[in-house]
Amino acid sequence: MISVGIVGATGYTGVELLRLLASHPQVQIAAVTSRGDAGTPVAGMFPSLRGMVELDFVAPEVEQLAGCDAVFFATPHGVAHALAGPLLERGVRVIDLSADFRIRDAEVWAHWYGQAHGAPQWLDEAVYGLPELNRERIRGARLLAVPGCYPTAVSLGLLPLLQARAIDPADIIADAKSGVSGAGRKAQVGGLFAEVGENFRAYGSAGHRHLPEIRQTLETVAGGAVGLVFQPHLVPMIRGIHATLYARPLDVDMDFQALFEAFYREEPFVDVLPPGAHPETASVRGTNLCRIAVVRPAESERLMVLSVIDNLVKGASGQAVQGMNLMFGFPEGQGLEAVPVFP
Amino acid sequence: MISVGIVGATGYTGVELLRLLASHPQVQIAAVTSRGDAGTPVAGMFPSLRGMVELDFVAPEVEQLAGCDAVFFATPHGVAHALAGPLLERGVRVIDLSADFRIRDAEVWAHWYGQAHGAPQWLDEAVYGLPELNRERIRGARLLAVPGCYPTAVSLGLLPLLQARAIDPADIIADAKSGVSGAGRKAQVGGLFAEVGENFRAYGSAGHRHLPEIRQTLETVAGGAVGLVFQPHLVPMIRGIHATLYARPLDVDMDFQALFEAFYREEPFVDVLPPGAHPETASVRGTNLCRIAVVRPAESERLMVLSVIDNLVKGASGQAVQGMNLMFGFPEGQGLEAVPVFP
Amino acid sequence: MISVGIVGATGYTGVELLRLLASHPQVQIAAVTSRGDAGTPVAGMFPSLRGMVELDFVAPEVEQLAGCDAVFFATPHGVAHALAGPLLERGVRVIDLSADFRIRDAEVWAHWYGQAHGAPQWLDEAVYGLPELNRERIRGARLLAVPGCYPTAVSLGLLPLLQARAIDPADIIADAKSGVSGAGRKAQVGGLFAEVGENFRAYGSAGHRHLPEIRQTLETVAGGAVGLVFQPHLVPMIRGIHATLYARPLDVDMDFQALFEAFYREEPFVDVLPPGAHPETASVRGTNLCRIAVVRPAESERLMVLSVIDNLVKGASGQAVQGMNLMFGFPEGQGLEAVPVFP
Amino acid sequence: MISVGIVGATGYTGVELLRLLASHPQVQIAAVTSRGDAGTPVAGMFPSLRGMVELDFVAPEVEQLAGCDAVFFATPHGVAHALAGPLLERGVRVIDLSADFRIRDAEVWAHWYGQAHGAPQWLDEAVYGLPELNRERIRGARLLAVPGCYPTAVSLGLLPLLQARAIDPADIIADAKSGVSGAGRKAQVGGLFAEVGENFRAYGSAGHRHLPEIRQTLETVAGGAVGLVFQPHLVPMIRGIHATLYARPLDVDMDFQALFEAFYREEPFVDVLPPGAHPETASVRGTNLCRIAVVRPAESERLMVLSVIDNLVKGASGQAVQGMNLMFGFPEGQGLEAVPVFP
Repeated sequence: MISVGIVGATGYTGVELLRLLASHPQVQIAAVTSRGDAGTPVAGMFPSLRGMVELDFVAPEVEQLAGCDAVFFATPHGVAHALAGPLLERGVRVIDLSADFRIRDAEVWAHWYGQAHGAPQWLDEAVYGLPELNRERIRGARLLAVPGCYPTAVSLGLLPLLQARAIDPADIIADAKSGVSGAGRKAQVGGLFAEVGENFRAYGSAGHRHLPEIRQTLETVAGGAVGLVFQPHLVPMIRGIHATLYARPLDVDMDFQALFEAFYREEPFVDVLPPGAHPETASVRGTNLCRIAVVRPAESERLMVLSVIDNLVKGASGQAVQGMNLMFGFPEGQGLEAVPVFP
Repeated sequence: MISVGIVGATGYTGVELLRLLASHPQVQIAAVTSRGDAGTPVAGMFPSLRGMVELDFVAPEVEQLAGCDAVFFATPHGVAHALAGPLLERGVRVIDLSADFRIRDAEVWAHWYGQAHGAPQWLDEAVYGLPELNRERIRGARLLAVPGCYPTAVSLGLLPLLQARAIDPADIIADAKSGVSGAGRKAQVGGLFAEVGENFRAYGSAGHRHLPEIRQTLETVAGGAVGLVFQPHLVPMIRGIHATLYARPLDVDMDFQALFEAFYREEPFVDVLPPGAHPETASVRGTNLCRIAVVRPAESERLMVLSVIDNLVKGASGQAVQGMNLMFGFPEGQGLEAVPVFP
Repeated sequence: MISVGIVGATGYTGVELLRLLASHPQVQIAAVTSRGDAGTPVAGMFPSLRGMVELDFVAPEVEQLAGCDAVFFATPHGVAHALAGPLLERGVRVIDLSADFRIRDAEVWAHWYGQAHGAPQWLDEAVYGLPELNRERIRGARLLAVPGCYPTAVSLGLLPLLQARAIDPADIIADAKSGVSGAGRKAQVGGLFAEVGENFRAYGSAGHRHLPEIRQTLETVAGGAVGLVFQPHLVPMIRGIHATLYARPLDVDMDFQALFEAFYREEPFVDVLPPGAHPETASVRGTNLCRIAVVRPAESERLMVLSVIDNLVKGASGQAVQGMNLMFGFPEGQGLEAVPVFP
Repeated sequence: MISVGIVGATGYTGVELLRLLASHPQVQIAAVTSRGDAGTPVAGMFPSLRGMVELDFVAPEVEQLAGCDAVFFATPHGVAHALAGPLLERGVRVIDLSADFRIRDAEVWAHWYGQAHGAPQWLDEAVYGLPELNRERIRGARLLAVPGCYPTAVSLGLLPLLQARAIDPADIIADAKSGVSGAGRKAQVGGLFAEVGENFRAYGSAGHRHLPEIRQTLETVAGGAVGLVFQPHLVPMIRGIHATLYARPLDVDMDFQALFEAFYREEPFVDVLPPGAHPETASVRGTNLCRIAVVRPAESERLMVLSVIDNLVKGASGQAVQGMNLMFGFPEGQGLEAVPVFP
């Protein structure tokens, strides 16, 4: 049994962390912080947690958090920069769901996030928390950078191909679609039901912050430069990401289905669908699963990969718990065994 | 550990039963039947169950089902009439999610369902499976009639008032709203996304089959005739029922909040909200909870009760599992501990 | 051809006014104001209007607006209080979509809106703009108070009954359901897609501001006190209101269907459905129609009326245009002839 | 004023045709056919049309339809094959919204539609009804093949580039997303709200029937073979198509924005957005507009085009009316002037 704190639990990844951790048999939630809501019950903000989480929000104080075995950050970028160091120095493991430690190059981070990197001295310590890529390093991590939602869906769809040198790394297109919870729980006109409902649009064409994160992962695996177009879209649904990936095979006769099945055979949370199937986001709702299909489009020599996750689980809080399980030697899937909620 | 069968698992209550039972620690699913889909994998029809349920559908045969400790019916009405008897005679417990054994009077049943009652000899055996009303009888039941979705939401909102003789039983209005999964998984134009989405309407004004079921429960508690208007509506969402109940207090100064809190204090799945709160269906999504608020409307001597459930869980499959737990002496909430999925 | 101004066109009733007025053959839009967005193109905020409305927002100045024949207010309450007087004094007709002049009693207004009434001297001038009730007075109005969305749906469903003294005025329940555009275009967490989608809840049980407005109308028609419970709910859809009205007939044998058909026979925008039909909000989408059904519920002596409107059209901007047509002697339905958009 | 018939008006393109034609000043609807619903009022099936369309469905008889000036087919494929000839021979213009006459090569048609082409002798007569490509030929057409929904959105996004020889025709990817009304009004489980809502998936990866149609158009413009990947997806919304198009520019320094603006300058229904904007489907809801943005993705030499339409208007019935206007010498936009319904 470990004791954990959650910094910034007033957003959707925060409430999802609470959902998952509240029923994790090895975890006791010791502190849930929110500067603005200190003193109010967590279940007052999230009625879904009534009877499940009895804590009040507290202000985020290093002293208090230092008593935890691990602290999760479900905060806007920049917050973990400030607090991770003091916690790490006191022996607390840090599991950061924000983007603060995902990019290894502090200058690249500063370019995309529009501010100086606040903790470059901790970058060497940070482990990118994609278990399918970094499982062993995660087991020993003190500072875990939980991958972004789009990067998770896209990377899992391309890892087998890039590792096997099966596609042209210079010609990859990731057309990605996300439910609106990915935009967070900020009060903004653009997220209103009347704006988003019965509507579909692309966004971020000029450059989305997940682009450098995805490229970093793909280039690590490919061992060299990757040419990538990444275009996100907003879907009128709450949860789910669907990545449609277009690549150019180097050998069109390769058995890509077999390649994917072999690559993910032992993975507890990646499911390669049989040929001809199309994964749907509802089939992973509420769970840490990624379902993938490999497709040869009609009358073309392209290769397509379709990859779906729940952006709040495998794309955020669930992957964070998976990482925590690895870091603390718990069974990797503990607390993540739920069956998808369908319909 | 018990062995269970599910008859008719191709609908939404069926897949929800599979979701709940697949992770129940005391249950092994022995057979899932569907006459039309025999031989095909369950997870082929419901991709959400890939890796969770490895069974194929089989044809419903009494011989095979007779080896189970319990058999669930998630079927259209009439099917359990035919099969329950033979199973009960072989010592199998029957948990019927259809309406076949909910109405104690076979003639009333025949009137509302438009066909003769097929198993009136078993009506005395049937126990109406609302634990908050019938817990002790459920523990000893061999044949459990799981309540309908609307009757669950409406009855839980009125039980404390009727038992306490706190309202005029002749003047009750239940204005109820349901997500569309309540209409089942039939191919029908009226359930298409393009018909139901961005749309709201009432239905069944001429008389809905849940009316006699609700009235039966209310009259049992009230000890006499009840005057009830029951009007259901269709909401453009998948899951959830919200019942808005209007009653006339006999003593307007009664502390109704205290009445409800006392009545439900020990109930594991009924949550009485604090004064001023409005329950929302999303706060119970995917769980067996019923959340209730008691309201005194402005400038009126009426009393209102607001009651929400997930129609597929507390309104169907979850309540069936709760009943099973009671029937077999398992902890009442086993397999039903999930935290609501929000957002 | 008249020249009109619109004050506060950055919300949903504002853009809906622009949609309707842009194609009205007798109207030229002279000015669209927004203090915060002055200088930016209207079509920049509302891409749906690109190519349809070529104006820029301007700051709201009485001098400029005074050149218009009519000025619409699509503003939060209090704004029209300040500006209506100066415009009226210069001979401009004012059509106010806010609540500023709907309540005849300034003290009642102050009680429900939490601030002093800012223009009580103009209350005698104000005409409540429900054409089915006040058509002749609207023709001569200089200051039109356009009814609220809920009051429109509820009042149209009850007018025939109250005028005919056919129901007990002391016992009326209005259970109303609205799409989320009714909450406006404010940035607020409660309106986010991830909060409102797949969710249903009641709100405002402690007293909604439309309660005194509805009661005022009903009491005017009934000629005395009315007992009313009004409970609004939020539906996960963008447009549409459905009012489910419960009344107690004084003569249960009255032909209510005939009563409604006779009452609304000449009305261009009220459609009484045949017996047995249920109106649906999608059947009036984008139009000024109200569709109504009269229902005798099963096994009850109650009477029910089901009434649907598009909250942004008949519940706001369309009714405002209908009023304008009457005030300026245009054909009453001009600019309002669109066929509902279904699906 | 012309007289028109509509064959097969029980689906979504049918009701949309009725919506548009009911308010077209030059059109009288003479007959609306449905074999299965003959004798019942059109407004009984589509309550949105109550008071707007007073006709009853009639059985489809050539004799009756032969009295019309034009007959629209809103039918499954194969029906127009059988009926178009007899009507054309009697001088009736045929406007076919089905796929029967879109593909010029009868064998290609037979391959993709799985049955022999039923009227190859009329293929030379058929004009592909995309006004932006074929305006002059449409004016003289007797048999109009109205383009499919995806082909309209995709083709309009690529015409300027292919005509200008600005991209590599061998390397085009069309990732397209459609609302569910595109699947029609058939009773099928896959279209139910509970299946489609809160869900996103690709479909038709093995080859969608719109692929050969799109390729035919693109090859006509390109003057040679085109390499195309076309992947459709299903969006949980009723109306709208968004095409995300990826191409490889031959000259990366070309001013593509200027190219598009020049190409579509005179087009009444194509709107090229300013640089940096993202078109959204809600901005064309209920109208015949196509809005397009040209995008240079970050850190890539690709070119992207984003194109949105309302699949039932510009993607079907609106484009059919636009074609009719051209064929009969009416103003091209008559009956199509509506402002988009937002929100």
